[in-house]
Amino acid sequence: MNLRFSERTSGIKASEIRELLKLTERPDIISFAGGLPAPELFPIEQMAEVSVKVLKEDGRAALQYSTTEGYVPLREIIARQRMPKAGVSATIDNIMITHGSQQGLEFSAKIFIDKGDIIICESPSYLGALNAFKAYQPKFIEIPMDDNGMIVDELEKALEAHPEAKMIYTIPDFQNPSGKTMSVERRKRVAQLAKIYGIPVIEDCPYGELIFEGEVYPSIKSFDTEGYVVYLGTFSKTFCPGLRVGWVCADPEILQKYVIVKQGADLQCSSMAQRETAMFMQQYDLDEHIAKIKTIYKIRRDIMLQSIKDYFPSEVKYTCPKGGLFTWVELRKDLNAAQLLEEALKEKVAFVPGGSFFPNGGNENHFRLNYSNMNEQLIVEGIKRLGKVLRNYY
Amino acid sequence: MNLRFSERTSGIKASEIRELLKLTERPDIISFAGGLPAPELFPIEQMAEVSVKVLKEDGRAALQYSTTEGYVPLREIIARQRMPKAGVSATIDNIMITHGSQQGLEFSAKIFIDKGDIIICESPSYLGALNAFKAYQPKFIEIPMDDNGMIVDELEKALEAHPEAKMIYTIPDFQNPSGKTMSVERRKRVAQLAKIYGIPVIEDCPYGELIFEGEVYPSIKSFDTEGYVVYLGTFSKTFCPGLRVGWVCADPEILQKYVIVKQGADLQCSSMAQRETAMFMQQYDLDEHIAKIKTIYKIRRDIMLQSIKDYFPSEVKYTCPKGGLFTWVELRKDLNAAQLLEEALKEKVAFVPGGSFFPNGGNENHFRLNYSNMNEQLIVEGIKRLGKVLRNYY
Repeated sequence: MNLRFSERTSGIKASEIRELLKLTERPDIISFAGGLPAPELFPIEQMAEVSVKVLKEDGRAALQYSTTEGYVPLREIIARQRMPKAGVSATIDNIMITHGSQQGLEFSAKIFIDKGDIIICESPSYLGALNAFKAYQPKFIEIPMDDNGMIVDELEKALEAHPEAKMIYTIPDFQNPSGKTMSVERRKRVAQLAKIYGIPVIEDCPYGELIFEGEVYPSIKSFDTEGYVVYLGTFSKTFCPGLRVGWVCADPEILQKYVIVKQGADLQCSSMAQRETAMFMQQYDLDEHIAKIKTIYKIRRDIMLQSIKDYFPSEVKYTCPKGGLFTWVELRKDLNAAQLLEEALKEKVAFVPGGSFFPNGGNENHFRLNYSNMNEQLIVEGIKRLGKVLRNYY
Repeated sequence: MNLRFSERTSGIKASEIRELLKLTERPDIISFAGGLPAPELFPIEQMAEVSVKVLKEDGRAALQYSTTEGYVPLREIIARQRMPKAGVSATIDNIMITHGSQQGLEFSAKIFIDKGDIIICESPSYLGALNAFKAYQPKFIEIPMDDNGMIVDELEKALEAHPEAKMIYTIPDFQNPSGKTMSVERRKRVAQLAKIYGIPVIEDCPYGELIFEGEVYPSIKSFDTEGYVVYLGTFSKTFCPGLRVGWVCADPEILQKYVIVKQGADLQCSSMAQRETAMFMQQYDLDEHIAKIKTIYKIRRDIMLQSIKDYFPSEVKYTCPKGGLFTWVELRKDLNAAQLLEEALKEKVAFVPGGSFFPNGGNENHFRLNYSNMNEQLIVEGIKRLGKVLRNYY
């Protein structure tokens, strides 16, 4: 067999995280690799109750085709309940339901990117987004970060040098993979720059509500007066990823493009999952559920950071995330985290090597650690094992 | 706001069917427009039972992230139980779960089509597929059909004239929109031609099991010795579309491309919906359920065809589908079905105008009628109303 695939397909690689998920399913591995929520916190009994109620009250519609935009009561709850938390006032005309926010990322590239177009993103950035974008054959400009997130002066320089750039991609809260958070001041400036340069900002917000102390940060979208910012939300980290329910919040003119693209891509999200998600939020308090998640994740973050302090060589750098799921480790420049992973696996511990989070390559001396998916005891044990591997090099 | 969208986005139009779905949700309209299954046949009580059982026995996994390929027991059931019905022996290594077969269509274009590449399809063809493909900016060559489906001599001529063509797309069973079925002899030849010309065949099979009399036809894939045929299946017409569970059955080398593309597009299908679908088939007999559906749809087809005979002008042509959901009406060449729809809506009856099923335009004198979604009484009444509209022109 000798098939001619499309040019773009040859440029797409399997996501290392997804491939690792397979490996790390082995029960003897302590895995800090995936970005998995803690399954022991899933509201399983409530979901059983909710599923039955949806089917009993609205079974025919729950199992039938529906509109591409999504289930109206769910769009209403998102517009009225979730978006205001990010400082955004929205109506259902701003909301389309997506099959997880990964679909929102894919659609963003499809809508804005032609071959060779420039995407500006943080350095490092979420590899699942980069892989989705790469299918559209863009060029990437990476903007360095400091403790306040993307360095916006550098962003401005990039926009000046490349006014033809087509899209800015950012994860402002507890960024994946770095765990860093963009300051409020910078969020304002990103919104201003989008307007000045007439460039859309894809604001990816899976973790914003998982802030360990204080209020949710106002989103970049909350400073967007003209409609240049597309906000991507999801229930995957605050509720259940297995249901695959996310959303796009955008200006209606832009949203219409997402709707048309979704029609072609998969017609609609699950009628059932959308109703279950809406019903859960009508019957229960999602904020209460999120508070429970945050309490546990904060404990796990604290234990992971303390264990790193205790067991890693003191020269190793790492970030202190204020929320979310990840910390980010920086090794000496001559070390290669992908090679270290092989040694770590021998010690039955796993992480994601950092190289693939940099769209233009390099920076192999980083790795990402997830703390949401392992219990406290296993975090200590896993970091201890990793420390042992690292101490061979320091 | 003045945004620069991608070139491809300007070429995508909203699907008329999806837009009509909104219109035809008005309760006073008798709609033959959508391709909706009969919701009164959905196994609602069994689904409630199944949902609870899945959550009780496997709740954490059902609500968690999972692998891109899909839930292994579901892939096994498809390989062992559904594919043999289409004459295909498959293993789980041939199966990836998709978010409905629409996603399989979208991925097929993404994997095989670069801008300007040729897709060969039936004339007419499924407009949802055409819209999905158009996002990749192909050219279309339309192959005429007769009562035995795509005229394969014409296909061969097209392949001879255009050996650079990248993909053949076909719906062999009770085609959408024509209701026509490809003969077994032609299926064999399509598989042979794929091999000779080294071109993939995307075989779209949502309706195959809904045959009103006799056995399911062997698929083109069943004659595929080299792996050139990609079979797209779905539970949307035989079970519940609202769950969005379909599949790709392909040679592992090709399937790997679908997996990589799905990673970028949306990571995975719903862990919950996949388990519910598998559990339903473990607890109940899907074939029994399909038999029930077929009995009802056959009655509805018979009543629709009889009503057309009774109420349409005798010069109007229409097809007699042996299964599936649709019949296809051909009017006098000077008539325009899109204009007729406006008049039909005044009479509170709807259909899909045929023009958009022809990728290269023309042929506005056709329309598609669905008979699965309306009860017998409404079918008679609706066709009577349509007949009234048509008689103004004959």
